Amino acid sequence: MAEDRSGQIAVMFISERTGDDAEGYAAAADAMDRLAAQQPGYRGVDNVSADGLGITLSYWADDASAVAWRTHPEHSATREAGRGRWYKWYRLHVADIARSYSWTRE
Amino acid sequence: MAEDRSGQIAVMFISERTGDDAEGYAAAADAMDRLAAQQPGYRGVDNVSADGLGITLSYWADDASAVAWRTHPEHSATREAGRGRWYKWYRLHVADIARSYSWTRE
Repeated sequence: MAEDRSGQIAVMFISERTGDDAEGYAAAADAMDRLAAQQPGYRGVDNVSADGLGITLSYWADDASAVAWRTHPEHSATREAGRGRWYKWYRLHVADIARSYSWTRE
Repeated sequence: MAEDRSGQIAVMFISERTGDDAEGYAAAADAMDRLAAQQPGYRGVDNVSADGLGITLSYWADDASAVAWRTHPEHSATREAGRGRWYKWYRLHVADIARSYSWTRE
């Protein structure tokens, strides 16, 4: 089955942005995407955003790699620096993927 | 903590739409949202879509209620009827939420 993520960790990040400093945000988001992809245990990302609302799903081999990314010095520094400027609020859920399905049009 | 979903089940639905039958899709999506919210164990939804790409997160009290929604006759019928018309592909991951964080601007 395509993209079976059973056994992976999903980090669900749901956010609403302020709209302030859109350029700074875009640059930081880009840098963080690239940095995340280099981390041990990184397994991919799905991301959609519209009208300031965003959902980002990042996938990790195990809980340790998800936690390591959360506490990565550059990631932490960017989060602290940007949080109050970029976001109205965010919510984050960490979950163990039990099963996956997928379907593609023939 | 606001919206602590620890212990809930998250169903992550990631999809790309064909763009065909947009009205039929919107009506069905609306009806399914309302029907889902009436199901036992329903705990909420987060949804963002842009340019045909969508991520919907639905939250459930336990695995049984997530499975019951998946196999709900009206939901199944709508899925079967609309799948080939509305979607290019979709992926679905079912996961146990281990922990939640949230942050709101002061």
